[in-house]
Amino acid sequence: MKKKVALGIDIGGTNTTLGLADEQGQCFDDESFPTWAHQSFARFFERLAEKIDAALARSLQEYELIGIGVAAPAGNYYQGTIDAPSNFCWGKVELVRLMTEHYHLPVAITNDANAAALGEMMYGQAKGVQNFIVVTLGTGLGSGIVVNGNLIYGHGGLAGELGHTIIEPGGRQCGCGRHGCLEMYVSSRGICRTVFELLAQRLDDSELRQISFNELTAEKVYASAQRDDPLARAAFEYTGRILGRALADAVACFGPEVIILFGGLAKAGPLLFAPVQRHFEDNLLHVYKGKVKIIPSIVSKCSIAVLGACALIQKEIEKTNRAV
Amino acid sequence: MKKKVALGIDIGGTNTTLGLADEQGQCFDDESFPTWAHQSFARFFERLAEKIDAALARSLQEYELIGIGVAAPAGNYYQGTIDAPSNFCWGKVELVRLMTEHYHLPVAITNDANAAALGEMMYGQAKGVQNFIVVTLGTGLGSGIVVNGNLIYGHGGLAGELGHTIIEPGGRQCGCGRHGCLEMYVSSRGICRTVFELLAQRLDDSELRQISFNELTAEKVYASAQRDDPLARAAFEYTGRILGRALADAVACFGPEVIILFGGLAKAGPLLFAPVQRHFEDNLLHVYKGKVKIIPSIVSKCSIAVLGACALIQKEIEKTNRAV
Repeated sequence: MKKKVALGIDIGGTNTTLGLADEQGQCFDDESFPTWAHQSFARFFERLAEKIDAALARSLQEYELIGIGVAAPAGNYYQGTIDAPSNFCWGKVELVRLMTEHYHLPVAITNDANAAALGEMMYGQAKGVQNFIVVTLGTGLGSGIVVNGNLIYGHGGLAGELGHTIIEPGGRQCGCGRHGCLEMYVSSRGICRTVFELLAQRLDDSELRQISFNELTAEKVYASAQRDDPLARAAFEYTGRILGRALADAVACFGPEVIILFGGLAKAGPLLFAPVQRHFEDNLLHVYKGKVKIIPSIVSKCSIAVLGACALIQKEIEKTNRAV
Repeated sequence: MKKKVALGIDIGGTNTTLGLADEQGQCFDDESFPTWAHQSFARFFERLAEKIDAALARSLQEYELIGIGVAAPAGNYYQGTIDAPSNFCWGKVELVRLMTEHYHLPVAITNDANAAALGEMMYGQAKGVQNFIVVTLGTGLGSGIVVNGNLIYGHGGLAGELGHTIIEPGGRQCGCGRHGCLEMYVSSRGICRTVFELLAQRLDDSELRQISFNELTAEKVYASAQRDDPLARAAFEYTGRILGRALADAVACFGPEVIILFGGLAKAGPLLFAPVQRHFEDNLLHVYKGKVKIIPSIVSKCSIAVLGACALIQKEIEKTNRAV
């Protein structure tokens, strides 16, 4: 009998990654290609199908493909759509319908943070944990929230968006049309905005004074902080303060046992984790103090979202089998 | 065969109410007595047991009692305890153990807002709704949050506390030891504090200028607002603004279909609901605009918490039966 595998696809703003995973979460044959999100969806789908067909041609002698899971920004689990994510020129796309017609296999979609949470739950840091939160710190801030062992999708399929809770009333302008959203402070773009606020407020020397807004990246802030630039370090401290406070509020809401951070900013290690941890404990309700862990993901972003997408479709197929 | 009923007990800071309910949510034989939360728990338990015994003596000819459900502030579902609620001089109390020993029946406890949510789900405004939030506006602000048809308890049994999320960083001092918690703005006590802030900030005449801090109640603010006192009306507008914004954030987190408000402040009707609704819509993420209803509870506070406590133990017994 052939070994059963799922195909996971992680559609990111920059790159798309796909890979196969078996039911033990062993991921293999993964590869990435540029998403080119400024091109039409039709063009993207052609390029994706080519990659999928090549992967299947390589592996279907040995494996049986049971279904396809997709992680994408603004991926809507209930509707099977990608709902016009910002930074993509796609509009709303009926991905699940298209993929099902093309491959005649079960297909499911969710957003990247939810996929990451599923990946952590089935194969990562949250195995056996019933209540936890995954926060993805990329260009924006995503979150996947698991309560009683199940992802929170909410009524419309789009719940669990900590990135768009307002943590600074009247604060920084957000792409969603409001002001003060968490993701405008805690994300790659957020820490860059913090740097420019600090440059305006403070007098101390900093190598970051030579970089324009458009040229600054979170990586450059990190590199400066590693070289002990005081302003870059202050930017991490500020980011950690805002995130620590927001996570303390999330604990009051969701009562998680563990919070897992990943994505670009989370790779900054103690530079970020130390202030997050400190301000988190300071802001926690009494009953939770010292009881909720904040840890980094041990799986790299690419494979956890692919793994999570595989986990998603595996769970869907299980559900269908139970219902039959 | 005798009809099966559950006993529900709602322990409040001022009064305790108990009543019986059948499996259709018909509540009867309910009565209230003062809690006297400043006296010892032992004394309270004696008085409660007397009331229970009398209720049972009246009804057990006709009915079979299947279990007891309790709603109490700081009621901990997992531990079966009341965890030293503020405004009570009780410390931590093992209520479920005590009641089980005394009555040899299944007993379960949760906090009052969670009980209200269960009551709304089984017998009230949220029948058949899988994702909703109940906000209780009493002395404090409680919340019961239902996701995928289940209450959120979180890892420690105390999740779902919107009242202790920080909505004004560095804001009003809260009894929990932090600053800026939602319940310090939106609750009976909160609106009184708002009145005093407005009295300090504004110059306009108001009948509230004659009342001391200790004498002011939410009822008096309401009565003044009914008489068109501009400052009292401004206090409701401010309260509605803060609550509307907080509920918009809660939608981003939990994706509910409906939000149900009840308790003292909710009885203010349009004075509260109009500004809540306006600021809620203003602050909602685009995808949710016009899609989430905010409605008042149609059941009075007393009976919804008693009903919810009955629903709690009915659900527990069902679970046990399924597991057997």
